[in-house]
Amino acid sequence: MLPSHGYAAHSATESLVPFKFERRDVGPDDVLIDIKFCGICHSDIHQAKNEWGNSLYPMVPGHEIVGVVTQVGANVKKFKTGDFAGVGCMVNSCKECDSCTAGEEQYCDRQQIVFTYNSKEKDGSLTFGGYSNQIVVNQEFVLSVSSKLNLAAVAPLLCAGITTYSPLKHWNVGPGMKVGVVGLGGLGHMALKFSHAFGAKTVQFTTSPGKIADAKALGADEVVVSKNADEMAKHAGTFDFILDCVSAEHDVNAYLALLKRDGALCLVGAPEKPISVAAFSLIPGRKAVAGSTIGGIRETQEMLDFCAEKGIVSDFEMTSFDKLDEAYDRVLKSDVKYRFVLDTTTL
Amino acid sequence: MLPSHGYAAHSATESLVPFKFERRDVGPDDVLIDIKFCGICHSDIHQAKNEWGNSLYPMVPGHEIVGVVTQVGANVKKFKTGDFAGVGCMVNSCKECDSCTAGEEQYCDRQQIVFTYNSKEKDGSLTFGGYSNQIVVNQEFVLSVSSKLNLAAVAPLLCAGITTYSPLKHWNVGPGMKVGVVGLGGLGHMALKFSHAFGAKTVQFTTSPGKIADAKALGADEVVVSKNADEMAKHAGTFDFILDCVSAEHDVNAYLALLKRDGALCLVGAPEKPISVAAFSLIPGRKAVAGSTIGGIRETQEMLDFCAEKGIVSDFEMTSFDKLDEAYDRVLKSDVKYRFVLDTTTL
Repeated sequence: MLPSHGYAAHSATESLVPFKFERRDVGPDDVLIDIKFCGICHSDIHQAKNEWGNSLYPMVPGHEIVGVVTQVGANVKKFKTGDFAGVGCMVNSCKECDSCTAGEEQYCDRQQIVFTYNSKEKDGSLTFGGYSNQIVVNQEFVLSVSSKLNLAAVAPLLCAGITTYSPLKHWNVGPGMKVGVVGLGGLGHMALKFSHAFGAKTVQFTTSPGKIADAKALGADEVVVSKNADEMAKHAGTFDFILDCVSAEHDVNAYLALLKRDGALCLVGAPEKPISVAAFSLIPGRKAVAGSTIGGIRETQEMLDFCAEKGIVSDFEMTSFDKLDEAYDRVLKSDVKYRFVLDTTTL
Repeated sequence: MLPSHGYAAHSATESLVPFKFERRDVGPDDVLIDIKFCGICHSDIHQAKNEWGNSLYPMVPGHEIVGVVTQVGANVKKFKTGDFAGVGCMVNSCKECDSCTAGEEQYCDRQQIVFTYNSKEKDGSLTFGGYSNQIVVNQEFVLSVSSKLNLAAVAPLLCAGITTYSPLKHWNVGPGMKVGVVGLGGLGHMALKFSHAFGAKTVQFTTSPGKIADAKALGADEVVVSKNADEMAKHAGTFDFILDCVSAEHDVNAYLALLKRDGALCLVGAPEKPISVAAFSLIPGRKAVAGSTIGGIRETQEMLDFCAEKGIVSDFEMTSFDKLDEAYDRVLKSDVKYRFVLDTTTL
């Protein structure tokens, strides 16, 4: 076993503290990664605080992991010592169901996804995430990271990046389309970058007039302050697709009214309470409300390769483990542009 | 002007009574139809009682119209005197927008649909529907009806038929698919017939165990009593598409749980109150809730031709104008198998 260390939550109400634990030895199909950076995702906070009611303690959060390969098992051909590598939200799945064999492991039909933390390996042992010095992962769930990009800025791509890239690709976003992005946070700012990069006319929706300039700098062709009903009305019936990145309660009907016939609004933020959808928001234009979560491993690699080619990374603020409480507080206030990244040299 | 007569509502609270009015003269592009039968749609009742708040009186309801052509204008080539013909929910639209030119007039982007009744012609005159002896309609909105089918049983196809045929075609229902139909009423029983005819494995959902035998006779491969949670759970994650024909309040999340990855539930019944959709009903399987309404003129003709080829018609109970109040009461109690049809000889 490999002695490892990181930061862990021990209950829903305590701050994360330094934690020592063991990783499994590197098996024939495993890759050992020396973690350099790990993004802070809002879901880390939900789970550390047991807000989804499924938390397993001690919990080492973190699923936006990048680092350097330091050891590989005998069967590993894709990676060698010294390579940059990444790990996202999943470290295993059933690999046999329709979804897994289609490369959509995130929708594993048997619900046998092993998440990077707050989950159990097939042998029953707890998984520990990226707020730590190193991680051992089966090569099939390890991503190649280009040395062209700023490694710290790549970390958030492993969750915020793929969560927005995947639905934009699934709904065929590209030139000639008008696409809306609701919310300008960790997810929204990546959605904006991708939609723009795919060639769609991209409109950012925000409740904060103070974010207009930032949104334009990030690639928005237009910014609509969603509280302004007149501004919203001007866009009625004109959108092909809207990616809704907001997890706070909000009225999706206002956005459904902006879709064209056959348009779809896809939720990637997950409001806690059920959303309220008027049948007449959907029926008169054959519109849809859909949902999407992260992306498969193959698509995550495609996304990382696309980012390397186009020079796309996340905007981030670097932080350190001693400031984790402060970072969590600021995430809860949406006071970060647009993702915190932990530097593991501060462990 | 053509002296005409029918039954009209004069306010939200009074019964329909005999009514004399005038139809326009037959113009060069018009078809005059001697109405033989007209179906009773639940929306006739909603509108007669002003339950949607947009009622225009006097109102002659009826948009499931079949009859015989008695006169055609000089430019009319598609129809000749003596032909069977039908009229559905629309008698005109803008004809120029993207939706209209795509043959999807029901989604007219300019919202210039002229409905068959409770609507205004482009000249501002009120439209009067099929609870009447005759109707004058522009040839582009008149459908050909095969003489192979029982004419009375064709009437409900003009609304209940196309409303279910169109979404089943749009979502590519066919062999190898598992399709659910929620609700066994006017819409549901047509959805069941079409889904079965398209070759899908079709499962009828009903709250009434008493409808099981009927549903099987209509083509259901299986019937699930939706109040039985165990029966529902057996189908979790197995449906490609579910057509929800229920307009009473109900929990769509229970049906979303039955969809496969990338499955869709489409509403054609329109519950009055907004539906409540949990984000986690959609996100973990990239599922969608959509809506659909009737179908375009081209597709309505395709549906009628398909019905003629396959011998598909609506199940119906014949009724007469003197029993309209009773028929409306029974529709409200869902006490009809599965559509009332008015015989205009009883006018």
